[in-house]
Amino acid sequence: MNSTMPMLETYPAEINLDRSRLAATIDALMDCSEACTACADACLSEGMVAELTKCIRTNMDCADICAATARVLSRHTGYDANISRTLLDACAMACKTCGDECGRHADMHEHCRICAQACRDCERACRDLLSIMS
Amino acid sequence: MNSTMPMLETYPAEINLDRSRLAATIDALMDCSEACTACADACLSEGMVAELTKCIRTNMDCADICAATARVLSRHTGYDANISRTLLDACAMACKTCGDECGRHADMHEHCRICAQACRDCERACRDLLSIMS
Amino acid sequence: MNSTMPMLETYPAEINLDRSRLAATIDALMDCSEACTACADACLSEGMVAELTKCIRTNMDCADICAATARVLSRHTGYDANISRTLLDACAMACKTCGDECGRHADMHEHCRICAQACRDCERACRDLLSIMS
Amino acid sequence: MNSTMPMLETYPAEINLDRSRLAATIDALMDCSEACTACADACLSEGMVAELTKCIRTNMDCADICAATARVLSRHTGYDANISRTLLDACAMACKTCGDECGRHADMHEHCRICAQACRDCERACRDLLSIMS
Repeated sequence: MNSTMPMLETYPAEINLDRSRLAATIDALMDCSEACTACADACLSEGMVAELTKCIRTNMDCADICAATARVLSRHTGYDANISRTLLDACAMACKTCGDECGRHADMHEHCRICAQACRDCERACRDLLSIMS
Repeated sequence: MNSTMPMLETYPAEINLDRSRLAATIDALMDCSEACTACADACLSEGMVAELTKCIRTNMDCADICAATARVLSRHTGYDANISRTLLDACAMACKTCGDECGRHADMHEHCRICAQACRDCERACRDLLSIMS
Repeated sequence: MNSTMPMLETYPAEINLDRSRLAATIDALMDCSEACTACADACLSEGMVAELTKCIRTNMDCADICAATARVLSRHTGYDANISRTLLDACAMACKTCGDECGRHADMHEHCRICAQACRDCERACRDLLSIMS
Repeated sequence: MNSTMPMLETYPAEINLDRSRLAATIDALMDCSEACTACADACLSEGMVAELTKCIRTNMDCADICAATARVLSRHTGYDANISRTLLDACAMACKTCGDECGRHADMHEHCRICAQACRDCERACRDLLSIMS
């Protein structure tokens, strides 16, 4: 098991969100960020890289946005719901776009298939969290 | 002069946005990210740090979101307007929140005053870019 | 299970390192980065925050360096051992310093105890990987 | 002018390094990170992208390492010279490698020429700072 849930459980003040749902979202974000970073690199090593440039670019955006979102959700001091909400919205959009793009190459590239799944899981986690925040 | 505008000018394909406005926004994002990172640290060194914890937290969020947004705006291959738009929206929100928070301590801490200005400039740059994207 | 090992297994070219060891290191880096981000925030919410400023700062450094190292190790295209090696060296140093600092407050703060463990695990993973790279 | 030097000048405690040199290094790191992010994307849009995959990868590593180094150097609270020193060492190595790689395509791609210059300037700034730290 990783440190996400233990760290949430030992946070010394109140957290305005369900800690299990929050931990699941943070983990999904970190996993998606990692999958996208690795998928961008795997695409670079494909012989047909010229046909994967949009995929690589979207992977890089998604990796950066998920990483920033994971960090914001890991902070609870001086919580401001507006920042979390608009960022989760942007993050879900990036995950959807990247999941769709990787999904287009999932038949041909296993790394795109795995990455598309990570993106879809992360999009769902972001939208689930958004739904309990409103 | 820095490399932002020269890099935009030598991008080998079309860019769907005015390059000067784009460069100004990227520079504002990098400057805001740096100011927020430095302000979080400066607050940590104040004797009254216990009263600045919300400021430190907001600084860290704003730094992370601005850094991710600068990267996304620096990519033009396989451009997807939806990702840029929702992220700029989240970033403007983070900059507004952080500018307001730092603004509250601007009379007492010079670093908060400078950081609040960087946040406001960045918020305006994000909103200006959003307005020409729609 | 997360996507780290599946992504390594589907990378379409050779990887110059043992894939299980590599996956374990990347996971340790992501976990340490997350623990440090959360610990910095948890320290901010402690009543005695003024005594934890060095811990917060070291947490932030360690989070940033681990995140960058996880990304570099997730790329295999055009691999350059010198970059990985010097960065792993810097990362092990950051993890050691942060593990020591958090360890000093482990008796009083559970989040510091968990974070110190994540730092030590990550330091060991970095040094193990370094030892098989040379 | 940007906020780097004003933020250093208003830091409320001592800084163990010359502030002008520090500001110049932080600015060089941010500029190099931005140039490398943009160069990776510009390479993706070149018709001959298949020949630029090593360049793209090195650009991404250099961008991540410079961004992390800029953040670490922007913090002064609880300063630990060992972290700064080993990280600057890794960063100078990444900048050298990326400057060399981009330099190989500088005749053909203007973006690589500009990026190579940013890398070399940043490598020199890192080494200069290292020399006054020892």
